[in-house]
Amino acid sequence: MEAELKEMLNDLDSIKQSLPDPSNLASSILKLQSRVEHLTKLAKSAPVRRTKVQDMSAEVVDSNPYSRLMALQRMGIVDNYERIRELSVAIVGIGGVGSVAAEMLTRCGIGRLLLYDYDTVELANMNRLFFRPEQVGMTKTDAASQTLSDINPDVVLESFTMNITTVQGFETFMSSLRNKSFRPNKEGSGVDLVLSCVDNYEARMAVNQACNEMNQTWMESGVSEDAVSGHIQLLIPGETACFACAPPLVVASGVDERTLKREGSLCSIFTYYHGSCCRAFSAKYAEVTATFWTCVSLSGLQFP
Amino acid sequence: MEAELKEMLNDLDSIKQSLPDPSNLASSILKLQSRVEHLTKLAKSAPVRRTKVQDMSAEVVDSNPYSRLMALQRMGIVDNYERIRELSVAIVGIGGVGSVAAEMLTRCGIGRLLLYDYDTVELANMNRLFFRPEQVGMTKTDAASQTLSDINPDVVLESFTMNITTVQGFETFMSSLRNKSFRPNKEGSGVDLVLSCVDNYEARMAVNQACNEMNQTWMESGVSEDAVSGHIQLLIPGETACFACAPPLVVASGVDERTLKREGSLCSIFTYYHGSCCRAFSAKYAEVTATFWTCVSLSGLQFP
Repeated sequence: MEAELKEMLNDLDSIKQSLPDPSNLASSILKLQSRVEHLTKLAKSAPVRRTKVQDMSAEVVDSNPYSRLMALQRMGIVDNYERIRELSVAIVGIGGVGSVAAEMLTRCGIGRLLLYDYDTVELANMNRLFFRPEQVGMTKTDAASQTLSDINPDVVLESFTMNITTVQGFETFMSSLRNKSFRPNKEGSGVDLVLSCVDNYEARMAVNQACNEMNQTWMESGVSEDAVSGHIQLLIPGETACFACAPPLVVASGVDERTLKREGSLCSIFTYYHGSCCRAFSAKYAEVTATFWTCVSLSGLQFP
Repeated sequence: MEAELKEMLNDLDSIKQSLPDPSNLASSILKLQSRVEHLTKLAKSAPVRRTKVQDMSAEVVDSNPYSRLMALQRMGIVDNYERIRELSVAIVGIGGVGSVAAEMLTRCGIGRLLLYDYDTVELANMNRLFFRPEQVGMTKTDAASQTLSDINPDVVLESFTMNITTVQGFETFMSSLRNKSFRPNKEGSGVDLVLSCVDNYEARMAVNQACNEMNQTWMESGVSEDAVSGHIQLLIPGETACFACAPPLVVASGVDERTLKREGSLCSIFTYYHGSCCRAFSAKYAEVTATFWTCVSLSGLQFP
């Protein structure tokens, strides 16, 4: 908007130059100029975005967004916090669980996030953390990218507005996970971890298939219908049972899961539950190692 | 901004009318008009605020912000969800724990929140959920009120930018808790629950004193220095030990807690920890009853 206004001032200036002297239009043009100047001031008072940070500094000053995180290194809890910037995490499903997991990783300064969802934001989603009423109508991936890049412009965000359970969606999902442009020398796939934050079995099976084919470590999550309990499962292809080998009881019994959903519940109903699944993603690790960093390494993600 | 732009269009129109026919200025004026029209479109695309909702509807439609929460009633988990609108919760300390507790309660549709903090938002706070970079420099209570009223304008928000440990601050704290204008017939104090989300013993003792004097149920929370563990304590005056009777070991041993803080750590360091304390506030209840509502009643908060 500021660029547009600047060009308007230039236009008005050239009109003024081309006016015959004296002209009855001179005062009208001056009035327009002052209006544009006022609008420029208004546009400038809009919120200023945080600028990108080249290197993570450990300096303890209020203006350093990484000050508290880098303190983990000074305290001896993490060896090299800055390595988080080399990591890519794919989050499938940007709902109650996925959106908060994405925000937490963004604030931690993760290198790159890949976000997958086919849905749009609705007012009915406001019971959960993250999305805001003014984002209603936007795709969940676009709304998430907007919020996350405002919070931390250092994170590389890739949005995929699509359904991974369709043939074409699955192919795009696979090729996006394989893409190594962010870290060309990485072994295996192009991501370090896949978080499944979806609300149906079909999508979980798609994630399972993709990760098995790529030998990719992933985590599965789920929230109960009344949203006061949930589950987390760490899956390492070749080490743990695969997701299809240990299906939920309801799936193993051959019941169609869609018959079990009650109108308007759609899983993760309850606001105060949201944090816990995302929290559990880290707790899974943290309980063992008490640090995000060590635990990420422990979960099979090896760094050069 | 839209009004300004409309007046500019009027101005341009009158200039066009007053131009001699033909004029070499006509095309310049047309160009300016199209610029202003474009700016008007940009200005119109600015976010629209959610309007207030008179009654909580249980209708299962995407446009109903309470649809998922009211489902708890249809599912038989909560007797009367709408009663949440009669409740007032005071949150002391709007940091990593308090801000997320406030956001969760706001999205749940709590009746009224009282927010207390003396600090301002800094970029160094961006490791935790809730505050955004464009709020740097604002007081934490003002920034929180801004975000929370955008998320849910139905919640009555009261901000207190002050330190409750000073003589004057403590008096204001007491009188704000006693104020019953929101629900004149309520027994006891004017709030239903006080959440202590502060980061020092002195402030905890101030909350303890106020709640003991008013016979007010409250919850204490704390996050460990490395932020991978924390504690929650429910305090019911006359029923449980008071906070001063069961002080933390470090306080009981007479060590000045300020000597224990390491530079730049300032407790709750780690982003992915934040959710858990706020979650625990509800888990404390939810583990017993599996619902927020029943549990609130169970914790000693009786409703008419």
